[in-house]
Amino acid sequence: MRTEIMLEELKEAYGTEWTTTLINIMSNEQKKDWFLRLDPNGRIPVIIDNTQDPPFPVMETSAEMLYLLKAYDKEDKFGFKDELERNQCLQWTFFWHGSGAPYQGQVNHFSRAAPEKIPYAINRFKNETLRVIGVLEIQLSGKHADEPRDFLAGKGKGKYSVADMKTWPWVKGWERTGFSKEEMDAFPHVLKWIDRIAERPAVKRGIGEAYNQS
Amino acid sequence: MRTEIMLEELKEAYGTEWTTTLINIMSNEQKKDWFLRLDPNGRIPVIIDNTQDPPFPVMETSAEMLYLLKAYDKEDKFGFKDELERNQCLQWTFFWHGSGAPYQGQVNHFSRAAPEKIPYAINRFKNETLRVIGVLEIQLSGKHADEPRDFLAGKGKGKYSVADMKTWPWVKGWERTGFSKEEMDAFPHVLKWIDRIAERPAVKRGIGEAYNQS
Repeated sequence: MRTEIMLEELKEAYGTEWTTTLINIMSNEQKKDWFLRLDPNGRIPVIIDNTQDPPFPVMETSAEMLYLLKAYDKEDKFGFKDELERNQCLQWTFFWHGSGAPYQGQVNHFSRAAPEKIPYAINRFKNETLRVIGVLEIQLSGKHADEPRDFLAGKGKGKYSVADMKTWPWVKGWERTGFSKEEMDAFPHVLKWIDRIAERPAVKRGIGEAYNQS
Repeated sequence: MRTEIMLEELKEAYGTEWTTTLINIMSNEQKKDWFLRLDPNGRIPVIIDNTQDPPFPVMETSAEMLYLLKAYDKEDKFGFKDELERNQCLQWTFFWHGSGAPYQGQVNHFSRAAPEKIPYAINRFKNETLRVIGVLEIQLSGKHADEPRDFLAGKGKGKYSVADMKTWPWVKGWERTGFSKEEMDAFPHVLKWIDRIAERPAVKRGIGEAYNQS
């Protein structure tokens, strides 16, 4: 979903073409040898750049988005030219990749998939996920800067970038993760940021919503 | 520790100077307002580049190492010039940042820090950590390539890079995490890679061992 958003943004900005191959995860196709050659971790999605010889596979959604940024976003529309802003974008991408995503993933596991309900684990990961959403709130509220921000990285109010694309699909799923409206009301700037990004046509197509609405 | 290894490597290669400020985590200094201005996530370590005006703070160890790489490793001794190799280095850095580190961190939490012992959670995170170490084994064994590799990223046998520096301090702590010699024997190439990196003088200094040995 994150990588699809980036691909849809590139398509809209540059007309970049891409195709999808569906992997049957019910039959564990992604753990078979041919797939492990592309991604030894056996996870979807993987991107393959067929314009390279040999074709170049990329695993890890964050690395995939940064690959697309470098190879196909020639004007840095979704990244930055300035080295400090570029690094700030990396900081927030790593932040969600290593703190937000794994915690929120464990909430989903322990509340739904786990065979036994373990209150300690559910609470631990719920609290930790709320804490990291609170870190996004600090950044977006501009608490430590001159003004509130529209996006996570970039000078001033910031600029929509890979850092937002990485983070947004997780955070906007707060209801599915089991957070209440009251819990999320503590993060007003995050809620506005969710709505701001949800309006983008490429984002709607990236998460498959545009098709449902048409 | 990861960032210190990178700083020690840069010092050895280029004479780059750096200093340390200790943060008292017992009094939660890293959650105070002055620290949150540097890292809204309130985690150590943070690096501050005082050669920038204003001084530039970097959070998230992986982003810190990549900042140092870009700003201070002018010859790409610990990174790559080729764009595909550079992205491969990112892939493995994100892999450990988002899969290895969070899982192994939860093993440490549930086996030692948690107030109750929860076998399901301990087993879940132990198994998942062993699985991702197995992914490193696939990569280092060269199972899907022509030959075994010395390091995670780069053509041929690979080249020591930020990806290894990010991953190594976690994996070499397998005993502390509670894995047995028998469990680790399933990963012979990983064990050799641990030893290969442990020999580097800058790594010894980065983890504070050089001082103990002198």
